[in-house]
Amino acid sequence: MQPAISVLGMGRMGAALAHALIKAGHPTTVWNRTPARAAPLAAAGAEVAASVRNAVAASQITIVNVSDYQATQGLLRDKEVAGALAGKLIIELTSGTPDGAREAHGWAQRQGARYLDGAILATPDFIGTEAGTLLVSGPSGVFEEGRAVLAALGGNVQFIGEDPGLANALDSAVLALMWGALFGTLQAIAVARAEAIDLGVVAKQWTATAPVIDGLVSDLIRRSADKRYAADSETLSSVSPHYGAFRHLVELMEARGIDRTITDGYEAIFRRAIDAGHLHDDFASMSLFMKRPA
Amino acid sequence: MQPAISVLGMGRMGAALAHALIKAGHPTTVWNRTPARAAPLAAAGAEVAASVRNAVAASQITIVNVSDYQATQGLLRDKEVAGALAGKLIIELTSGTPDGAREAHGWAQRQGARYLDGAILATPDFIGTEAGTLLVSGPSGVFEEGRAVLAALGGNVQFIGEDPGLANALDSAVLALMWGALFGTLQAIAVARAEAIDLGVVAKQWTATAPVIDGLVSDLIRRSADKRYAADSETLSSVSPHYGAFRHLVELMEARGIDRTITDGYEAIFRRAIDAGHLHDDFASMSLFMKRPA
Repeated sequence: MQPAISVLGMGRMGAALAHALIKAGHPTTVWNRTPARAAPLAAAGAEVAASVRNAVAASQITIVNVSDYQATQGLLRDKEVAGALAGKLIIELTSGTPDGAREAHGWAQRQGARYLDGAILATPDFIGTEAGTLLVSGPSGVFEEGRAVLAALGGNVQFIGEDPGLANALDSAVLALMWGALFGTLQAIAVARAEAIDLGVVAKQWTATAPVIDGLVSDLIRRSADKRYAADSETLSSVSPHYGAFRHLVELMEARGIDRTITDGYEAIFRRAIDAGHLHDDFASMSLFMKRPA
Repeated sequence: MQPAISVLGMGRMGAALAHALIKAGHPTTVWNRTPARAAPLAAAGAEVAASVRNAVAASQITIVNVSDYQATQGLLRDKEVAGALAGKLIIELTSGTPDGAREAHGWAQRQGARYLDGAILATPDFIGTEAGTLLVSGPSGVFEEGRAVLAALGGNVQFIGEDPGLANALDSAVLALMWGALFGTLQAIAVARAEAIDLGVVAKQWTATAPVIDGLVSDLIRRSADKRYAADSETLSSVSPHYGAFRHLVELMEARGIDRTITDGYEAIFRRAIDAGHLHDDFASMSLFMKRPA
């Protein structure tokens, strides 16, 4: 018999988590602020708890997936609920900051509860599938306790480290990379529209270019990891040609009235790197200039 | 017998172009401001011209690859050189803006020359190979005249359109996408370093995530092309969850002193889209808010 699990929060993601647990054979109790959203789960075989306290009391493990950590606090820091947490395991899958996770871990410990913090790197349709990725951090002994339940939520569960903030930190890092690509795409679309280039042509060009960009990203991470900042025979591109071509993009955006705040950010990093003498170094040397100047 | 070609500019890229032409059997004349840089080409079989005028006079087709369009003007707008251009074909492969290309095309016409503008989407090591990509724009009849020569420079020559500015415009659009990914990577590296996450872990995560991001980028371009901004059953992600997770990244960057100019640019676009009522629309609706506010 699988252990009983409670799930707080029945948004699209929370509902997907509960469905995956039911499918994996866990007796599942769900709670949602608006009870109507829990109805489909009841139909699928879940118990619907009348209160957060009842939900927490129903299982050894409570999974939380609400809007943010403040919302989690609003649910758990109620006196009655907090009193029910001693000896339980909380798995916080709400997205948040590393510091938020560390603070929540400390609070849970003070209630006598065990705590894991996870970040879901997947859309709800991937939950419960082999491709579902969850990053998890917290005490490794506690991770072992939660491992089987987490495995029901996704085939790619990765333990990132003992520091409970690490899952959120790595999540934010990956999302920063993703938004870079997405906002770069929005700029590409804006340039194409301003110049009456069919977006089908841009899509075709993206298909041809994606492997090249993927390779540049991998190379940038690897060289930064190895601190290989000087240009060498393996350098794909130094700062100088990037900056030259970048100035043309800025000129074009200026001429067409496209918002340049993002490229102002690029410019600031280029300038700091060039002023510090890295014009002919590998592009990876730019990674040394990401701090806000004092 | 292949037609004779002259190449102005023997930087890394110009030298690669000249080598590819020699290899393809074109009698090749090269010129460089610093003659020493032309020496390896002489050894490979090129004629080294003593002046720009001599280089232009030696061939029907002159390829230009210098630092920027201003440098090109400095070479070609000399009275003697301009006088030698009538009846010739100029292929400008120097990187620049769409307006710069249009202006150069108009000037060339006034000298009685034909003109094509190209953008090289490849590093020098790809020149002359099947994977070498060149975007080319200008009068289609002139493109037909230059096609065989361009084919010697790369296996993937794409004619973008009659407007000579289009190759540079598409080049800038693709580069905007590339820099988005690269500066997003720099932010990911900064976050990882601030949180003491090994960059090897980030690299591993990137390998797992790259196909997902590639898919999101393709979807964003396609939906923007089709103007499908309302969320529908195929929506991968609406503005709302992006913005929620984005706020956590900003909070983390603020706490760790990472420069937020780039994310300020993201924030401005998010705010304009949300203020205009797109919070629950597809992320592609963000493409409507790329203009600088008046």
